[in-house]
Amino acid sequence: MILLHTPSTKETQAYIALFRAAMPQQTFITLDELDDPNQVAYVVTWGPPAGLFAGLPALRGVFALGAGVDKLLARDDLDPELPIYRLLDGGMAAQMLEYVRFGVLSYQRHMDIYRRQQADGVWKMLPPRLPADVRVGVLGLGEIGLTVARGLQADGYRVQGWSRTPRSLSGLVSHHGQAGLHALLAESDVLACVLPSTPETAGLLDAATLARLPAGAMLINAGRGDLLDEMALLAALDEGRLRCAQLDVFAQEPLPPDSRLWQHPSVTLTPHIAAITLRQQAVAQIADRLQRLVQGEAVAGQVARHRGY
Amino acid sequence: MILLHTPSTKETQAYIALFRAAMPQQTFITLDELDDPNQVAYVVTWGPPAGLFAGLPALRGVFALGAGVDKLLARDDLDPELPIYRLLDGGMAAQMLEYVRFGVLSYQRHMDIYRRQQADGVWKMLPPRLPADVRVGVLGLGEIGLTVARGLQADGYRVQGWSRTPRSLSGLVSHHGQAGLHALLAESDVLACVLPSTPETAGLLDAATLARLPAGAMLINAGRGDLLDEMALLAALDEGRLRCAQLDVFAQEPLPPDSRLWQHPSVTLTPHIAAITLRQQAVAQIADRLQRLVQGEAVAGQVARHRGY
Ligand SMILES: NC(=O)c1ccc[n+]([C@@H]2O[C@H](COP(=O)([O-])OP(=O)(O)OC[C@H]3O[C@@H](n4cnc5c(N)ncnc54)[C@H](OP(=O)(O)O)[C@@H]3O)[C@@H](O)[C@H]2O)c1
Ligand SMILES: NC(=O)c1ccc[n+]([C@@H]2O[C@H](COP(=O)([O-])OP(=O)(O)OC[C@H]3O[C@@H](n4cnc5c(N)ncnc54)[C@H](OP(=O)(O)O)[C@@H]3O)[C@@H](O)[C@H]2O)c1
Repeated sequence: MILLHTPSTKETQAYIALFRAAMPQQTFITLDELDDPNQVAYVVTWGPPAGLFAGLPALRGVFALGAGVDKLLARDDLDPELPIYRLLDGGMAAQMLEYVRFGVLSYQRHMDIYRRQQADGVWKMLPPRLPADVRVGVLGLGEIGLTVARGLQADGYRVQGWSRTPRSLSGLVSHHGQAGLHALLAESDVLACVLPSTPETAGLLDAATLARLPAGAMLINAGRGDLLDEMALLAALDEGRLRCAQLDVFAQEPLPPDSRLWQHPSVTLTPHIAAITLRQQAVAQIADRLQRLVQGEAVAGQVARHRGY
Repeated sequence: MILLHTPSTKETQAYIALFRAAMPQQTFITLDELDDPNQVAYVVTWGPPAGLFAGLPALRGVFALGAGVDKLLARDDLDPELPIYRLLDGGMAAQMLEYVRFGVLSYQRHMDIYRRQQADGVWKMLPPRLPADVRVGVLGLGEIGLTVARGLQADGYRVQGWSRTPRSLSGLVSHHGQAGLHALLAESDVLACVLPSTPETAGLLDAATLARLPAGAMLINAGRGDLLDEMALLAALDEGRLRCAQLDVFAQEPLPPDSRLWQHPSVTLTPHIAAITLRQQAVAQIADRLQRLVQGEAVAGQVARHRGY
């Protein structure tokens, strides 16, 4: 028996319908329909209620309906040995590329400056900047980051990447570790972060990190909110050291009404929509893995819990 | 002898230096250096002063430092038989693709709506829209338009095009004529205009044309300002029939201070920068053609003056 839960009943029902169609031989239930907790072998979920897992003694695995599992791993009701599976791309990488591309295009083509000129009634051409004139640093080269980096390269930008382990990627300069990060920061007109939140990455984008970016750089954060020191970003924007930021994730979500980010003229913010889970693709991918697990096969996308992603 | 003129002395000097390096055997002069008008065989120019051409009896051709020649053709000092050559792409098509892509991305990813939500302090996710959910109509399938259409297709958008003559383009649905325009308009969530201004196209984007777009559509105009009835656009935006517009060209440029377009919340406007002439590429392309002309060969890019482009 497979338990499905999301914070929205409608969403949960939509998932259940798709799963039942994909795996008619399996039983999918909602929390309301849960009679016998001993029957639940897997949970497929986003934002499960506190304590849920502790009451499911026969649990064999949890599937996250997203790529990031930081919230899930931070819970205290999960057996440390329990396999956790996350979504692998499933249409999110392409969305993330669009989101980052929008920010990079805005920077390259001065659209933020033209917007300000428009508000001020100023008609003034700025010197053209070509993609090859813009250096983009991509933090994170996983399922999502590598697609972003490759896509921006295809657009003509000068892209470098950063990951935890050394990667050898044809035609893409990539760094790792602290020294690698410093090298990349110094050469990033736009820094695009698509890292997971882990004990190692939390707080990474602090004042010291931002200070290493070239003057007039842009920050895009679509990884997780706790990677960024929002106060440090605001200070860098206020002082004009950074030109602008495009933020999709925040230390607290929804972003609190009193955050200065809302009204800052150099900030574009979006409500955690950079890469939304696509239901059909998520169901297809999870159904395939459930099928394999039932048949005793190995599956991709298991989170390495000691690493935090 | 080749006369070079642009409205900016600095710009003119920069061009002369590049041309002299590219064609050391030729003589390039500025207007200030013009002693004997009988010696001028070609003019390379953008925004030449009124009456200039009438005083050059030995003129054999004019090279425009841009793709659009509507201003040039509207002059009364040009012999109707005189060959006029325009720039062919020269890096402008890629810039135009970026400009249109920015608008289409903004529309697809709801960035205009999120910007308004941000101003209002509203945190609200909108349902994701994929590229395949967005139909883009591209008006003009020449050097620039075809690159735009193909690029947006590669991004995953559902693209159709429109041209004066019937075109057969593999994998791209394209229309022509009035009936073709109506078919395209009815299926364009985003209408991107990169047409030249000609007697046939002037005023094309009027109230009746805009009324044929689906409710909530977006208009991008980077062709020429006189194609668009700005009052009709403002009315459509005010009534909410169109969602937004991104405009690079205007009936009068610079856009007059009293234009309502400046402050309209649904309008993004830029000061005619969608595709800027790149000096190096322009010089390389024109030098090559001058060389061929001197050798008596045929060259590309001659404007068909009866067509107006
Ligand atoms: N805003 C949104 O809408 C949205 C949507 C989806 C995902 N996301 C975020 O995007 C993140 C990435 O997703 P993904 O599917 O690409 O994950 P992934 O495949 O696990 O990739 C993670 C990448 O981050 C790198 N990394 C992890 N820890 C690091 C460290 N300490 N230093 C340097 N690099 C480190 C990894 O390096 P290695 O290659 O060496 O392992 C890997 O390249 C998610 O965790 C989530 O937070 C956001
Ligand atoms: N905003 C900027 O920064 C900027 C920069 C550069 C250019 N532009 C504008 O872009 C225009 C296009 O440049 P280009 O180099 O692509 O020109 P082009 O190669 O001459 O292409 C013009 C296209 O427009 C089509 N067309 C012309 N008259 C038409 C009509 N009556 N009905 C339907 N289609 C018609 C042509 O149809 P056929 O294929 O049938 O001939 C052709 O596909 C320029 O003229 C200029 O106005 C703007």
